[in-house]
Amino acid sequence: MKIELITIGSELLAGQTLNTNAMFVGDQLGKAGLTLSRQISIPDDLDVIVSTLEESMTRAEWIIVSGGLGPTNDDVTKAAIAEALGRSLVMHDDIMTELKDRYVKSGRPVTPYLETQAILPANAEIIPNPIGTAVGFYLKSRNTTIAVVPGVPREMHPMIAEHIVPRIADEVDVSATTIIWSTTGMAESRLYELLDPTMKANPTIAVAYLPSEYGVRLKFTAQGASAPTELETWASIVRPLLGSAVYAEEDIGLEVVLGGMLRERGLTVAFAESCTGGLAAKRMTDVPGSSDYVIGGFVTYRDEMKSSLLGVDPRLIETRGAVSEEVAIAMADGAATKTGANCAVSITGIAGPGGQRPGKPVGTVWIATAIKNHPTEAVRLQIMGDRHMIRERAAQAAINQLRLRLLGSPKG
Amino acid sequence: MKIELITIGSELLAGQTLNTNAMFVGDQLGKAGLTLSRQISIPDDLDVIVSTLEESMTRAEWIIVSGGLGPTNDDVTKAAIAEALGRSLVMHDDIMTELKDRYVKSGRPVTPYLETQAILPANAEIIPNPIGTAVGFYLKSRNTTIAVVPGVPREMHPMIAEHIVPRIADEVDVSATTIIWSTTGMAESRLYELLDPTMKANPTIAVAYLPSEYGVRLKFTAQGASAPTELETWASIVRPLLGSAVYAEEDIGLEVVLGGMLRERGLTVAFAESCTGGLAAKRMTDVPGSSDYVIGGFVTYRDEMKSSLLGVDPRLIETRGAVSEEVAIAMADGAATKTGANCAVSITGIAGPGGQRPGKPVGTVWIATAIKNHPTEAVRLQIMGDRHMIRERAAQAAINQLRLRLLGSPKG
Repeated sequence: MKIELITIGSELLAGQTLNTNAMFVGDQLGKAGLTLSRQISIPDDLDVIVSTLEESMTRAEWIIVSGGLGPTNDDVTKAAIAEALGRSLVMHDDIMTELKDRYVKSGRPVTPYLETQAILPANAEIIPNPIGTAVGFYLKSRNTTIAVVPGVPREMHPMIAEHIVPRIADEVDVSATTIIWSTTGMAESRLYELLDPTMKANPTIAVAYLPSEYGVRLKFTAQGASAPTELETWASIVRPLLGSAVYAEEDIGLEVVLGGMLRERGLTVAFAESCTGGLAAKRMTDVPGSSDYVIGGFVTYRDEMKSSLLGVDPRLIETRGAVSEEVAIAMADGAATKTGANCAVSITGIAGPGGQRPGKPVGTVWIATAIKNHPTEAVRLQIMGDRHMIRERAAQAAINQLRLRLLGSPKG
Repeated sequence: MKIELITIGSELLAGQTLNTNAMFVGDQLGKAGLTLSRQISIPDDLDVIVSTLEESMTRAEWIIVSGGLGPTNDDVTKAAIAEALGRSLVMHDDIMTELKDRYVKSGRPVTPYLETQAILPANAEIIPNPIGTAVGFYLKSRNTTIAVVPGVPREMHPMIAEHIVPRIADEVDVSATTIIWSTTGMAESRLYELLDPTMKANPTIAVAYLPSEYGVRLKFTAQGASAPTELETWASIVRPLLGSAVYAEEDIGLEVVLGGMLRERGLTVAFAESCTGGLAAKRMTDVPGSSDYVIGGFVTYRDEMKSSLLGVDPRLIETRGAVSEEVAIAMADGAATKTGANCAVSITGIAGPGGQRPGKPVGTVWIATAIKNHPTEAVRLQIMGDRHMIRERAAQAAINQLRLRLLGSPKG
């Protein structure tokens, strides 16, 4: 099964936009046991789109096309597809009615641009877009099915994941089984060291390491009918090796896992953040329904705020430094006291590029966790990377630190 | 001048690696006034690489090939290039000597793999790699020059920026000039409506719309020696049409612009965030040195925190609702009072998917801005999109709201 992805947009070639859609499509196909055979980025140019489609149709059974469905003049994808397939462009009245309804309901003016969104190649099968105005569609031509989606990631991703990949998977007898584990707080090289002997003893299991700024996802794949059983045995061998570095035996965010633990135990949490500037609280509240356990937080970016908002003794800041075990602990205790939360997490560190102190280079971060009826504890991290990376990793480590403490103390 | 980029690596198609190299090459070419005409990702497969190269050679004067130069068995780029161009692979003794020297000097053992790194197609012109062992090279075939570099970003980037792009730019009389403006708070369709008549009257200026969740960047391009003057005239016509929607006449983040305004005026800012959960404060503190003007913030995710941390009257929350003009204003005033900041920004809204109230659908957001010696003001937004989008756009709008008010009140 040959599947090609054509991502259309001059911005992809001009170095202005990272092609995250290509990664998303590859990942989604991979989870279904499918592989992208080629990815091509081309500009919003009618002739180039037509010739690229014609070439791809000679090679591929499936072509996914993204981008260039907006109403502005540089969006020519629909015209090019119609031309390549010898179809006409026609107004789809049902789509027009639905789009108008949505606009009227949300009180927005219906502009002439909206109409262009309902014009599609003849005989297109619609893929609904609940988020934006550009619907997607399937077209069949000889031996190739073409699936067309908008380039805006938030609109494209559900259309790929919920419509297109399942449709392609339906057409093939996919025999690979894959499981993904999410880890954090352990380096890829260390994971590799721990897994390597077991991998060599189990050559039918393929292991892929998928690192990100938050940690490493592990993807285990086996082939054939016995794959599920093989993977289950594998998991039972590998689980004790990795311990609490594995925070979920699925591909989800750490904030979802900690949120679930807090909800289950009826606990609440507050944050006191310095160098992360609100990022840890933002991460935790990414999850719908997080108001069940996230009470609130403090961004005490300046030292005097650590004292005035959290009650940290100014002499502690003066003698130990704002980035210290003592201040981290006082911040967490202060956040718990001021909000009444059962748990509080504090983060104070040097995100750089400036700000280092003797014995405290850029990347030094103290994290403290306060849990009701338990002593408040702090850990020191030395994080590698630039400002962005240090902040992202510090917030992740803070969320993980509370998870690890709750794991060790079931009642919270 | 047609320039194509072929990025080789199965990991690029399996959704495991974001193709940052493609963005880097596009950006570097763009800075030299050049444009990538196509980018293709293919797996480490000899036949696929050969046929892709053969196709590209029929279209392009320059082909940049990256990836697949390492010593592991799935790296077949050199063999494929030699085959496509009908060259043999030969040992380059000078490279071997230099690599061995480097290994001996750094105390690393010389392995058999090192030898494969010195084997290249005949008549290759070397591009040195001071960081890794895989050298790059140029090959000329009929009308096409092929430049081959390793895929590891920190090895590839200097070879692209310092060798290949200058070499291509030397071959052409580059004449395009480009300017980028950053806008926020105005829909792409509205920008288009405003610019459309002027665009039609100035057909020598090309306009590209580059939307993101934060706003739309506008890229204006003109050709030839008179391009800078033409763009200056164009800017003077377009500037009044777009007004304060343009927050910078360059490609930078809104948080950098507001930060600059605050620093220039000697002002400080604090945040009081509900639905954004700390995101606005996080955005502002993304900027190094932001402690000069960001004092701190509050995440008052639960209603009782709005009262206990910010002093919002609980009866106000009860009668008007937490998402209301009155509560937004009381939150901003409370943040200013509690921190002593000159300015404060509050955000309270319904990020969804749940939580809507009669007359307050998901996406309803109130933003208030408090500025010392000025009345506190609030605006209501109705944001489209999912939870992530609503939160990102609300934080962006809050930062923009303070910018707009400071624009109208030069003394802050």
